[in-house]
Amino acid sequence: MHGSFSSESEMNIINLGIPVAPVWSEAVTVMQCGFAFLEAGSVRSKNTSNILIKNLLDSFVAGIAYWSLGYAFAYGDGNSFIGWHGWASHELPLKELASFFFQFVFAATAATIVSGALAERCEFVAYFVYSFCITGFIYPVVTHWVWTSEGWLAKGRDYTIDGVSTTVAYSDFAGSGVVHCVGGTAAFVGAIILGPRIGRFHSETSTVLPLRGHSVPFAALGGFILLFGFMAFNGGSQLAISNPGDGAVVSLAIVNTVISGSMAAFISLFIHKVGIMGKTWSLLNTLNGALAGMVAICAGCNVIRPWGAAIVGTIAGVAFNITSWAMGKFGVDDPLDAVAVHFGGGVWGVLSVAFLSYDKGILLNWDKESGLLAGLAAIIAWTAVLCIFMFGTLHLLGIFRVSEEMERKGLDIPKHGEPAYPLESYGHGYIEEILT
Amino acid sequence: MHGSFSSESEMNIINLGIPVAPVWSEAVTVMQCGFAFLEAGSVRSKNTSNILIKNLLDSFVAGIAYWSLGYAFAYGDGNSFIGWHGWASHELPLKELASFFFQFVFAATAATIVSGALAERCEFVAYFVYSFCITGFIYPVVTHWVWTSEGWLAKGRDYTIDGVSTTVAYSDFAGSGVVHCVGGTAAFVGAIILGPRIGRFHSETSTVLPLRGHSVPFAALGGFILLFGFMAFNGGSQLAISNPGDGAVVSLAIVNTVISGSMAAFISLFIHKVGIMGKTWSLLNTLNGALAGMVAICAGCNVIRPWGAAIVGTIAGVAFNITSWAMGKFGVDDPLDAVAVHFGGGVWGVLSVAFLSYDKGILLNWDKESGLLAGLAAIIAWTAVLCIFMFGTLHLLGIFRVSEEMERKGLDIPKHGEPAYPLESYGHGYIEEILT
Amino acid sequence: MHGSFSSESEMNIINLGIPVAPVWSEAVTVMQCGFAFLEAGSVRSKNTSNILIKNLLDSFVAGIAYWSLGYAFAYGDGNSFIGWHGWASHELPLKELASFFFQFVFAATAATIVSGALAERCEFVAYFVYSFCITGFIYPVVTHWVWTSEGWLAKGRDYTIDGVSTTVAYSDFAGSGVVHCVGGTAAFVGAIILGPRIGRFHSETSTVLPLRGHSVPFAALGGFILLFGFMAFNGGSQLAISNPGDGAVVSLAIVNTVISGSMAAFISLFIHKVGIMGKTWSLLNTLNGALAGMVAICAGCNVIRPWGAAIVGTIAGVAFNITSWAMGKFGVDDPLDAVAVHFGGGVWGVLSVAFLSYDKGILLNWDKESGLLAGLAAIIAWTAVLCIFMFGTLHLLGIFRVSEEMERKGLDIPKHGEPAYPLESYGHGYIEEILT
Repeated sequence: MHGSFSSESEMNIINLGIPVAPVWSEAVTVMQCGFAFLEAGSVRSKNTSNILIKNLLDSFVAGIAYWSLGYAFAYGDGNSFIGWHGWASHELPLKELASFFFQFVFAATAATIVSGALAERCEFVAYFVYSFCITGFIYPVVTHWVWTSEGWLAKGRDYTIDGVSTTVAYSDFAGSGVVHCVGGTAAFVGAIILGPRIGRFHSETSTVLPLRGHSVPFAALGGFILLFGFMAFNGGSQLAISNPGDGAVVSLAIVNTVISGSMAAFISLFIHKVGIMGKTWSLLNTLNGALAGMVAICAGCNVIRPWGAAIVGTIAGVAFNITSWAMGKFGVDDPLDAVAVHFGGGVWGVLSVAFLSYDKGILLNWDKESGLLAGLAAIIAWTAVLCIFMFGTLHLLGIFRVSEEMERKGLDIPKHGEPAYPLESYGHGYIEEILT
Repeated sequence: MHGSFSSESEMNIINLGIPVAPVWSEAVTVMQCGFAFLEAGSVRSKNTSNILIKNLLDSFVAGIAYWSLGYAFAYGDGNSFIGWHGWASHELPLKELASFFFQFVFAATAATIVSGALAERCEFVAYFVYSFCITGFIYPVVTHWVWTSEGWLAKGRDYTIDGVSTTVAYSDFAGSGVVHCVGGTAAFVGAIILGPRIGRFHSETSTVLPLRGHSVPFAALGGFILLFGFMAFNGGSQLAISNPGDGAVVSLAIVNTVISGSMAAFISLFIHKVGIMGKTWSLLNTLNGALAGMVAICAGCNVIRPWGAAIVGTIAGVAFNITSWAMGKFGVDDPLDAVAVHFGGGVWGVLSVAFLSYDKGILLNWDKESGLLAGLAAIIAWTAVLCIFMFGTLHLLGIFRVSEEMERKGLDIPKHGEPAYPLESYGHGYIEEILT
Repeated sequence: MHGSFSSESEMNIINLGIPVAPVWSEAVTVMQCGFAFLEAGSVRSKNTSNILIKNLLDSFVAGIAYWSLGYAFAYGDGNSFIGWHGWASHELPLKELASFFFQFVFAATAATIVSGALAERCEFVAYFVYSFCITGFIYPVVTHWVWTSEGWLAKGRDYTIDGVSTTVAYSDFAGSGVVHCVGGTAAFVGAIILGPRIGRFHSETSTVLPLRGHSVPFAALGGFILLFGFMAFNGGSQLAISNPGDGAVVSLAIVNTVISGSMAAFISLFIHKVGIMGKTWSLLNTLNGALAGMVAICAGCNVIRPWGAAIVGTIAGVAFNITSWAMGKFGVDDPLDAVAVHFGGGVWGVLSVAFLSYDKGILLNWDKESGLLAGLAAIIAWTAVLCIFMFGTLHLLGIFRVSEEMERKGLDIPKHGEPAYPLESYGHGYIEEILT
């Protein structure tokens, strides 16, 4: 009788747990909107409709690609490298759709990171191709390695040194490596092959020139939405992969996200104020710093304590700024600083787990670190090689970059027939009398 | 003892289930914000404050009307046509308020669909009248027919042919007919009686002229929010009407929403690219296509499998474009394409259930289809007749349309004293030096 | 055996309850975005980046201050006045982090109210100081008084009159007093010490002159988000402080929020239409009215019935407008009407509970009212005294207000180097042919 009750109680957990998981996934879907407006505000008005439609299509391409192919590569039964069951959600039991939806949202996030780095000069059709490849193949394979029990990075390798047996494995809770390094690496490769925007670097001195976005409010709106989304991203990860009994850890993940993001924001704010990289209180750099802090805490937000999150955030703020500076130095044009945020924050995030896991203390765990380094190298190499092939092919086919004339004059009118702010739609017939 | 435990467990379900339902309803409330910005971006700047305040008041009018009258007509005990208990939530047990809130949010959605079709020329007071009538009476009666156990469309009719007994009934899971066809029909009737905006059709050739909205980013913002809201709309419907044990179906509903919306978006994108209806990659049409796909999947998102959702979305994208084209052809001016999205998508959505229900296979079920057709006809006829009376009265009283002068010069200044972008509030005293 | 099952069931409640609480907190975090855009739309374009970065930093400062100090003062064990355990979430059991996160979000809300009242003329560094003080000390102490079992306002005092023993205590469900009167009082004190903006009052007649914000759509966007956030704010409060078994009350709280906000919106709309305070249908006043209605219902949304909420909202709409009028009359410049919304709405909200609690009937309960009045006086006095000291010090140090030149020319360029809409980022190279 105990048994029957017990299973009844368990069923309650499952029945109730499922409606909560989609709530978190739902919350994460707003990140698509967040990226869209962060990018829309950061481009010039002549390319605004272009970047918005690309972000809109990201989700739809991901919807089809991840559903038809990606999920099967990622979570279908297979070998330690790749899965191959459940094409188009076929054979998938209904209750696994909650998990499918959550994973789909993550896949779409990985893909959407790239669009920022390619903004203002990339051909429309190229977006289809890379969105499809990333969400349909590149990203799913990495998740198979890390987030399934049969994946080679999840299983790790057993070593026996002096009679002591250790497993060296890779772990990454909410995807500092799996989501953000994949997205950041793809963005980096894409930005290099695509080349910088006209006017980005001084023709003689090669110094970075400002090509400012047309709307700080839209960029800030996107940022606010992303901050909100990141809490759900990290908090929801706990729920998706573990027992409902660990519910308290959801809150730990969210609190860590807040603390890490806050510290990274302050570091970035001050770096841009004290003269290292500027002399003003910069909104956009503060925002990007905060995002980098949230990216970095993804990997360990379930095992790091809040004081550890403060350290992760502080270093993430520095890592973001160094990466951003290096990008300019080496002549790579990333209009959104997407590489600095996601790759810079993500690499540090993966490595931070070996230092700051609560149960290990803050002493470096070299066994753990070596596993993380190896896994990170594998993820970056996999993504880079496939992206070089993918973006290189687009480049050789001449369908990666728009013509110089179109880049100078703007993409919205010739490509989309939809200027973001049509001139004829402004103005009143009335003249107001204003008291002064 | 078993009994006592069992009821205890059940109580847990109820106690815990309730806090989840309002979460979904909450998520759906953002659709009001979504509609507001989709519409604000799609009108000219001179009418922006006007459309925003109308959308804001939609929710408040619905709040009062649905609370005081609507819910009693809809879910109060009554006969098969209408209910009449629970005015102003009186006698309503506390635990039913979760359900009340969810239904209120749907009612507000049905009403807000209309405002887009009447934009830029409708009198302010007319909005109060129709919002009150739709959320207080027209929509609630339809929900009583379909979504209560005593409703005549829910019960259907029993036929015995050749000794075989069949029930022909109408079903509509998340309201392709109940919400969207009601809203779409009201929008259609309103737009016809109100007449087109000045300058919408060429004075000689009657061809459609573009009266573009003033901000693609605002329209896109609204669209992104609506996409998010639709997932909650369809997913939450499952939770509201069924046992917590069916939680897995929440995810099915959401996944179907994503798939159908994605397919409809692509179809609409390509129709506007390949020369049928244009030659550019149109953001606004892609967005509206996606919304039509999500409208269409409402009716069957709990019984259709993802591959079926792909078919529903594909046809919904076509249905949207045909309806949109027909509206222009017949001289009806709908600035937001609200009729094409909600009526076009909604009608197809209702009918799709008979083809694509998983347990029936994809062969057409004529018994089912006849019930759906009859129900749909009843819903459209009911809404159309009442709306003709309502909008016709407003028209005859001369309080439906603003004066020609005000329409030409814009509504914001004379009606609201609040131009969306007051000229005197722009500009800096500093001049920047920009490196180039 | 019964016992063991019982505790197992309870554990299920806890395990499942926790993942829901963060969902509500998550939803409340969007209020930061709401305030940011309400304020951004309400300032002139030259100060837009400034107000956005201030709102962004609000959350981050609160993240650090409330985590390191505030929560310990508020919810740590201590005496009836203040707590002193749990600095930097140290010693805090993991499961209490859900509660911590919820409370943090409320603290950030209390602080962010202030930024609106100080907009367009306040020094950047002053924001750090007051955000830190409010979220790290002023607000937490008040919550200790009211929302912990050892707080002196929560315990109240026992009186025995004619042999009948009564407890006179203060209660405040979701913070009409604790959150909104604290924020409103701080905003009021800050606005007085800071002084009005240049040009706000006529130099001779002292009448209020309009200094309109630059974007009604952004203000409306913020408003829509705040309306959404308020539902979660009030609904989530139920969940955070009580047993899961009271889940139905979550819905009561949300429905009351809708009803009260709706009524307050209408009252405010009509006051500004019928000539008392204007002659137009004002969007911004309607929006602020709705917010005041939602502020007012915070205190009693768990014990007031919907008809009571209609009364609360009606009076809140009047209270908002009277406060707003009085502010102008007495020469206090509050660009956002933050005092009128939060202080005006909040004071009435606290007092309303004694009239409209369902179990007491609508007759005034003087015992209750005296407790509420005393508590309210204590909260306002505490906040006012500390804010006079805090803002007064900033004023005396000369770091509270920017120079006159900077105020006239705008803060965005000299302080942040980020004009909201950089001129060089606008325009197309293509000229469209438009059919007319």
